[in-house]
Amino acid sequence: MIEVAIVGATGYAGAELLRLLTAHPQIKHILAGSQSYEGIPFSRQYPSMKAIYDESCVENDLNTLARQCDVIFLALPHGIASKQVNEAILDQCVIIDLGADFRLKDIGVYEQWYKTKHEGRALLSKAVYGLCELYRDEIRHSRLIANPGCYTTCSILTLAPLLKAGLIEKDSIIIDAKSGVSGAGRSEKIDSMFCECNESIKPYGVATHRHTPEIEEQLSLALNNNTEGTGITVSFTPHLVPMNRGILTTCYAQLKSGVQTAHIEQAYKESYAGEHFIRLLGYGTFPETRWVKGSNWCDIGFTVDKRTNRIIACGALDNLVKGAAGQAVQNMNIVFGFAEDVALETPPAFPV
Amino acid sequence: MIEVAIVGATGYAGAELLRLLTAHPQIKHILAGSQSYEGIPFSRQYPSMKAIYDESCVENDLNTLARQCDVIFLALPHGIASKQVNEAILDQCVIIDLGADFRLKDIGVYEQWYKTKHEGRALLSKAVYGLCELYRDEIRHSRLIANPGCYTTCSILTLAPLLKAGLIEKDSIIIDAKSGVSGAGRSEKIDSMFCECNESIKPYGVATHRHTPEIEEQLSLALNNNTEGTGITVSFTPHLVPMNRGILTTCYAQLKSGVQTAHIEQAYKESYAGEHFIRLLGYGTFPETRWVKGSNWCDIGFTVDKRTNRIIACGALDNLVKGAAGQAVQNMNIVFGFAEDVALETPPAFPV
Amino acid sequence: MIEVAIVGATGYAGAELLRLLTAHPQIKHILAGSQSYEGIPFSRQYPSMKAIYDESCVENDLNTLARQCDVIFLALPHGIASKQVNEAILDQCVIIDLGADFRLKDIGVYEQWYKTKHEGRALLSKAVYGLCELYRDEIRHSRLIANPGCYTTCSILTLAPLLKAGLIEKDSIIIDAKSGVSGAGRSEKIDSMFCECNESIKPYGVATHRHTPEIEEQLSLALNNNTEGTGITVSFTPHLVPMNRGILTTCYAQLKSGVQTAHIEQAYKESYAGEHFIRLLGYGTFPETRWVKGSNWCDIGFTVDKRTNRIIACGALDNLVKGAAGQAVQNMNIVFGFAEDVALETPPAFPV
Amino acid sequence: MIEVAIVGATGYAGAELLRLLTAHPQIKHILAGSQSYEGIPFSRQYPSMKAIYDESCVENDLNTLARQCDVIFLALPHGIASKQVNEAILDQCVIIDLGADFRLKDIGVYEQWYKTKHEGRALLSKAVYGLCELYRDEIRHSRLIANPGCYTTCSILTLAPLLKAGLIEKDSIIIDAKSGVSGAGRSEKIDSMFCECNESIKPYGVATHRHTPEIEEQLSLALNNNTEGTGITVSFTPHLVPMNRGILTTCYAQLKSGVQTAHIEQAYKESYAGEHFIRLLGYGTFPETRWVKGSNWCDIGFTVDKRTNRIIACGALDNLVKGAAGQAVQNMNIVFGFAEDVALETPPAFPV
Repeated sequence: MIEVAIVGATGYAGAELLRLLTAHPQIKHILAGSQSYEGIPFSRQYPSMKAIYDESCVENDLNTLARQCDVIFLALPHGIASKQVNEAILDQCVIIDLGADFRLKDIGVYEQWYKTKHEGRALLSKAVYGLCELYRDEIRHSRLIANPGCYTTCSILTLAPLLKAGLIEKDSIIIDAKSGVSGAGRSEKIDSMFCECNESIKPYGVATHRHTPEIEEQLSLALNNNTEGTGITVSFTPHLVPMNRGILTTCYAQLKSGVQTAHIEQAYKESYAGEHFIRLLGYGTFPETRWVKGSNWCDIGFTVDKRTNRIIACGALDNLVKGAAGQAVQNMNIVFGFAEDVALETPPAFPV
Repeated sequence: MIEVAIVGATGYAGAELLRLLTAHPQIKHILAGSQSYEGIPFSRQYPSMKAIYDESCVENDLNTLARQCDVIFLALPHGIASKQVNEAILDQCVIIDLGADFRLKDIGVYEQWYKTKHEGRALLSKAVYGLCELYRDEIRHSRLIANPGCYTTCSILTLAPLLKAGLIEKDSIIIDAKSGVSGAGRSEKIDSMFCECNESIKPYGVATHRHTPEIEEQLSLALNNNTEGTGITVSFTPHLVPMNRGILTTCYAQLKSGVQTAHIEQAYKESYAGEHFIRLLGYGTFPETRWVKGSNWCDIGFTVDKRTNRIIACGALDNLVKGAAGQAVQNMNIVFGFAEDVALETPPAFPV
Repeated sequence: MIEVAIVGATGYAGAELLRLLTAHPQIKHILAGSQSYEGIPFSRQYPSMKAIYDESCVENDLNTLARQCDVIFLALPHGIASKQVNEAILDQCVIIDLGADFRLKDIGVYEQWYKTKHEGRALLSKAVYGLCELYRDEIRHSRLIANPGCYTTCSILTLAPLLKAGLIEKDSIIIDAKSGVSGAGRSEKIDSMFCECNESIKPYGVATHRHTPEIEEQLSLALNNNTEGTGITVSFTPHLVPMNRGILTTCYAQLKSGVQTAHIEQAYKESYAGEHFIRLLGYGTFPETRWVKGSNWCDIGFTVDKRTNRIIACGALDNLVKGAAGQAVQNMNIVFGFAEDVALETPPAFPV
Repeated sequence: MIEVAIVGATGYAGAELLRLLTAHPQIKHILAGSQSYEGIPFSRQYPSMKAIYDESCVENDLNTLARQCDVIFLALPHGIASKQVNEAILDQCVIIDLGADFRLKDIGVYEQWYKTKHEGRALLSKAVYGLCELYRDEIRHSRLIANPGCYTTCSILTLAPLLKAGLIEKDSIIIDAKSGVSGAGRSEKIDSMFCECNESIKPYGVATHRHTPEIEEQLSLALNNNTEGTGITVSFTPHLVPMNRGILTTCYAQLKSGVQTAHIEQAYKESYAGEHFIRLLGYGTFPETRWVKGSNWCDIGFTVDKRTNRIIACGALDNLVKGAAGQAVQNMNIVFGFAEDVALETPPAFPV
């Protein structure tokens, strides 16, 4: 039985994490840290949790929390975690960071895309990229886990097997991604208002979205057999879809000459054999976000456009679960030796 | 460990039931009966369940299923259950009927509102109305449970305490109810199409909806201390709301002279003390369907409009969970002596 | 050809007004006043208007605008109009106020519900309540028109004929109202965010909403043949529905003894004979917001619940058109002697 | 003043056409043809049109209608128009076909993608492709106009200028398209139900959608200076978005070496100078479907992803207006010499 804290518990990802953790049989206590709502019952912000979690939010103080907890989840804007996490904290507890600070190995790339100095340089080498299906063994022995972004998890899970198996042209990758609105977080701004999002679709962050370098670094590692995080450049276009949750990535790439459908099926099976949370739909069947909503599953399907010799492969997941809180729990389960699906077993509800 | 069957598993209520039951630790096997999809994998209709429940649908035959199962859930249009259930079947298994056939004690009222002859007259006296919070003891010993309707569960839970405590004028009750679209089921019809429901609200079945007599019978029993199912007539107006799930009942009634807010608080507490799935929000706080979505909770709040001396009390629940499949599982848990919340523990997700 | 200004043009009601006015053949120029976006192209906030209205916003200064314009529309929070409008301004131009300041005749009622002192006391007697179908003759000769609220327009149009004809018990009126989210305006707040509104319905302002006294005053005038604005007290419960636009009011009242359906049909016909923007659906047919969306129509239907002798009458309109900007244009058309439906002819689109 | 008929008036495109035409000052009478609702008031299916168009539907008989009308709009499933239209009908009236039968010049391509024999071979050479901005002069003198598809209008308007100006590599085009649900029409099927579409996004018809050859033929003509309809092959992936209306096409292409942003701006300006219904948003600004909803506008914006030397250009339009009924009216206006925007002037409402 372990004790956990969530720093930034009242954002959407933090609250989803709290919800999942309350149902975890190996957790004896959860602390919900919040800068804005310290001292106020968590369920005031999320009445869904009334009678389930009736504690008040505590101060977002890493040092204090580290003394009390076995693991701390950070759900914070970028730039904060890298300032606050240090060796002393990692000696006391495991950190699972849902933010961006420890995801990129190349600090120059981080500083270029996030337009801020990285203040946790010394710890970067200790951080493991928490994409469970790719780095399970490293995660098991890590104290600092960089939980991947939502778009990135979906993009990488869809594309990495194709690169590992050498099936696609590395300069031909285009990722057209679609996300529900909860991905934008719970801070009030006109762009996130109901009437501004409802009944519309829009691209945003075109050619500039910060998940791009994360996708590129990981796809490069997949291509280069985990030796080098460069070499792949992608076009990545996110879109906002009028729905609460869900990410769909529609990925395009030129197949290498001679690649057959069977090779693609084979590549996916090799990468994901025995993976509990990956469902391979196979050739000609495509994922839809409704089938994974509220769950930790990632569904993947593809087709080959024979007229252009392109593969069109799609992945779908729930941005707040496999794309954030669920994967964070999965990482915790790996680190602490719990079964990987504990607290993540609920099948996706439909319609929901 | 028990074996269960769902007759009508591919409708929304049936599928939600299947989903909940797959996570139930006391169930060793589930049979999914379907008239339309017999022999076809259930997950073809609900890809959400792929890798979770990969069996094919079986024939919807009550006699066969009764021999194999400890409990059968019926999720069928009205008029079928009353024809097919019989003593021989009840000798072999428990029946939990999500349909309307065994809900009304007064067969004349049934035939008048459903405009069809009731063919299960002999069994009516054996049926228990499966509103768990009101009839737990009777349910425990029953073999035939009539799971209540979605609107009715929400209306009765909100109003019964006020009648039991004698706080409101019995002829003054108005229930203005709102439901998500999943309440209309999964049969294709123009009225249920996306573009016909989205971005609109409408009343329907005004003064004629079949949940009316069910509400009236139960409220009468509450008023008359469970001795008589008549005496209460209500105005009940359902509305269709552009959302997948959720029921909100806004209930109006004239307070009897001298009734104070404290009496109302007291009445609710007495009725629901210790009830796991009822959350009393108290005076001045109102439920919203988002806080119960995907869960078995029913939230209740109220205010007193002092200028008119009316109480306005609201209940909210998820029509497919507490309003259908969740309550059916709760009933099963009661009958078989499992903890009442097994397989119903998942807290409501938000936003979802 | 006239010149007009909108003060508060970048809110939803103001922008809808601008949109309607750009298509008005009798308007030669429109000034869009905005406190927040002065000097910035209006279409920066509403790219829908690019190439249609490319002017920049001007200062929200009533005195300046009054010198340039024949009519000024005010779309401001309450309390501002009553401070700024004065005789000098009314000498120069007509004021159509979409806010609450001049709607209530009883200043004490205003101050009680709005919890602020009314600073335009002297002008109150000059103000005409701009519900076109009820006060057309007074509007024609007025310089200060108080455009009604959205809920109120819908509630009054549905109920006034019944009171005028003496068909319902005056103390029995309950209005259960439902609104789309645009009614909450365009200011960022957590409650108006997509993920907080989507997939949920909630009551709010129960027994305390500020449209209540406006409804009561007008229904009292209907009851008392326009002699006295008191006597009617209603229960009014607004609900937030996950859709952009639309208001539905479900109104309940006890019928007086002996009242027949034909009397009700007759009452509606007498009140609305020849009214262009009222569609009477008659007995047993109910309005839905989708059929009026984007238009200036108000649809009304009803039934009689014979078991309780209550009438259930429903009205539906678009909150931003007939409930705000459309009615404001209709008022302008009346004042300036244009055909009443100029710029309001577009039939409701569907599905939209 | 002309007389018009719509064959297939009760589908979404047909009904939108009827709505637009009722506001057209040059039309003296509209006949609404319907196979399913002949003899029934049109407003029974679309109560939005009550009091605006109260006529009953007439038989869908082309020969009869041709005798009465100056122009007939066909809104029918593919394969019917090509059987029924003939020289005799074209002698009597203009045909504007919203279906697919006369859009493709290459009959072999039609038969391959639509898997049916084309029965109107003789008329194909008389048909003009009704994309107004590209073929205005030909349309003016035509009696048989093939109104383009919704996805195709949006894709072609976005990409044609780039091909005409020779700025992109012809084999590199990928179109990732997103559509609202009304594009699927008004026939009941499970896939179009509210609960099946709401809160989800999915790809469909991947690499097989029938708008593909139409896009390819037209882009080839743009590339080859209107001499040859072959040479371009694209990857086209449509997605279903939970909204009523709107199409967004996100188009990717490799820029030819040396192409600068200014060349792109120039290409768009040359193609669309003076075009009333095209709004060029320019470099770095992207269209959103909400800004064109309910209107005949098509908005276009783009960026250059310098790291990959790709252009990402997006178009947005309303699938029922510029993508169907609005463009059909625009075509009619061109043929009959009316101002091109008559009955299409209403600015897009927002939020709607």
